[in-house]
Amino acid sequence: MDVKIIVDAFGGDNAPLEIMKGCEMAVKELDVDIMLTGKEDVIRKVAKENEISLERMQIVDAPDVITMEDSASDVMKAKNKCSMAEGLRRLAADEGDAFISAGNSGALVVGATHTVKRIKGIKRVAFAPIMPKDKGFFMLIDGGANIECTPQMLQQFGIMGSAYMEHVMEIKKPRVALANIGTEDHKGGELQHQAFALLKSTDLNFIGNIEARDIPADAGDVIVSDGFTGNVILKLYEGVAMTLMNKIKDIFMASVSNKIAAAIVLKDMKKLKKAMDYNEYGGAPIMGCAKPVFKAHGSAKAKTFYNALRLTKAYVAGDVIGEISRSVAEFDKDDSAE
Amino acid sequence: MDVKIIVDAFGGDNAPLEIMKGCEMAVKELDVDIMLTGKEDVIRKVAKENEISLERMQIVDAPDVITMEDSASDVMKAKNKCSMAEGLRRLAADEGDAFISAGNSGALVVGATHTVKRIKGIKRVAFAPIMPKDKGFFMLIDGGANIECTPQMLQQFGIMGSAYMEHVMEIKKPRVALANIGTEDHKGGELQHQAFALLKSTDLNFIGNIEARDIPADAGDVIVSDGFTGNVILKLYEGVAMTLMNKIKDIFMASVSNKIAAAIVLKDMKKLKKAMDYNEYGGAPIMGCAKPVFKAHGSAKAKTFYNALRLTKAYVAGDVIGEISRSVAEFDKDDSAE
Repeated sequence: MDVKIIVDAFGGDNAPLEIMKGCEMAVKELDVDIMLTGKEDVIRKVAKENEISLERMQIVDAPDVITMEDSASDVMKAKNKCSMAEGLRRLAADEGDAFISAGNSGALVVGATHTVKRIKGIKRVAFAPIMPKDKGFFMLIDGGANIECTPQMLQQFGIMGSAYMEHVMEIKKPRVALANIGTEDHKGGELQHQAFALLKSTDLNFIGNIEARDIPADAGDVIVSDGFTGNVILKLYEGVAMTLMNKIKDIFMASVSNKIAAAIVLKDMKKLKKAMDYNEYGGAPIMGCAKPVFKAHGSAKAKTFYNALRLTKAYVAGDVIGEISRSVAEFDKDDSAE
Repeated sequence: MDVKIIVDAFGGDNAPLEIMKGCEMAVKELDVDIMLTGKEDVIRKVAKENEISLERMQIVDAPDVITMEDSASDVMKAKNKCSMAEGLRRLAADEGDAFISAGNSGALVVGATHTVKRIKGIKRVAFAPIMPKDKGFFMLIDGGANIECTPQMLQQFGIMGSAYMEHVMEIKKPRVALANIGTEDHKGGELQHQAFALLKSTDLNFIGNIEARDIPADAGDVIVSDGFTGNVILKLYEGVAMTLMNKIKDIFMASVSNKIAAAIVLKDMKKLKKAMDYNEYGGAPIMGCAKPVFKAHGSAKAKTFYNALRLTKAYVAGDVIGEISRSVAEFDKDDSAE
């Protein structure tokens, strides 16, 4: 299958060098074509200076450069000749199969919604980070794109998340769970009650409500939530892990004997830190767009970005969008038959 | 100041023995009187067998015993002769200054609301656990009593939490923050926007919105939230810490050399585990009741329960209820003047 991925060469902390290195790896290893968007002169200069091959890479000049200070709407309006806006337009114009960026998440969600549009029948686009748990990983959907959600939106989040986890992350019959304040069926508010019923009515592997306490254990493969709660989960997860790891670091630095102990377990601790760092995982697909859009981590270096490109290719090859379209059409049919 | 604390002798995993031991310590150390509610024959037998002095302890027989299977409403209705219901009635009848239980949180919130009633002007009672952070602790209010909240309820949570942290936990000008999905003033949904404005209008030390990522660092002394989000924060906090600590334990058990390293840092790691265990902290006052009601941790042993009794005494002696009443009356006056 020929896959062409449009890449925001100027998104993220390590752009464009690490992005370009990741793309070079992807061309070699994944047999994909790349379209790079960004300042063409800089891209060519960086390629030359770092001996990065531009084989199978098309460059589309995008002269505007966005900064951390630019808001999501700036990116798509005032600076609509930036690498992200250009890439999204090229995707919408069918010049590639997917778009990937390590740039601003908010801008990417807003831009994807307006430029690429949604899958027919899908109410809202969701930000769906893949996060570490005790063993493996899970998808949190929505991680913050939609503050106010309807029950139907949550149902669709479950359908979309399940399709992605099955066809991209290769989890058989992903367990879909509703983030709630207890495991009993009646828990939560009106939103949860109705979303529970709607999720139960699907043919998803819906395992019911889960408590936040059980998310890091192994409570589910797709955790469905409104975007406010999801964003709190995403950020608290990171905050608690970071605080705890810092405290452990303090212990290891506290005395000479502790430093010796640290040296012994250093390798294993580093492995743990990496395993718990959600930046190491599969980034965050933007679910619900009519074509695959993928958010790579802002701090991604070449290897992490390469990994994100691998998942983006699988997002295309797994026909996740087609799966979602068919599921949603099925539901719409059911609705109109009622 | 003479303080008499009504104690649920049959609440919690280690009742009545550890509860009674904690009470014995409190009588000696804190100069308080105790009223124990529970099965009188068992209390007397346990006291005798364990040589626990019942000096300054009154016993009120409460023959019903509740189990984990009983719902919150069972506790207050079908089993209204249980130790918790009896204690709350005695508090409402002014036979003591405060009530403390290590029993079911949900039942305690429901029971306190119906039996003890609310402070005049307070819309809802809140469950307000004291939790560990990088340095020290913070109050999370509401931790789960009210799934659906109005902006005014969140304002009152801020007022109540601040009074408690100042007068019981001895934090000068507690920093009150609103749990949100970003630090900018406009973040969040309608509830957050309005609550932000209402909190800003108080004379609290309101520091604005905080992101969940910053809660475990040192983002605030009182974290204000609706009960759904608060419960997610409370439980995820515990879940992430637990999963991470288990993973570290696995590392320390992974090899002979790692076990040696573990032995070196064991004491410090235990200290950390204790510091991060919110069970070790000050329990959870039920805020907004017309008289002090305090939830001690279900797993509390004698020393933890003694500590909870110490805080309960401070809850009375600090006149937190009076402080809250005056603040709320001030606001009601402002409202009617408008």
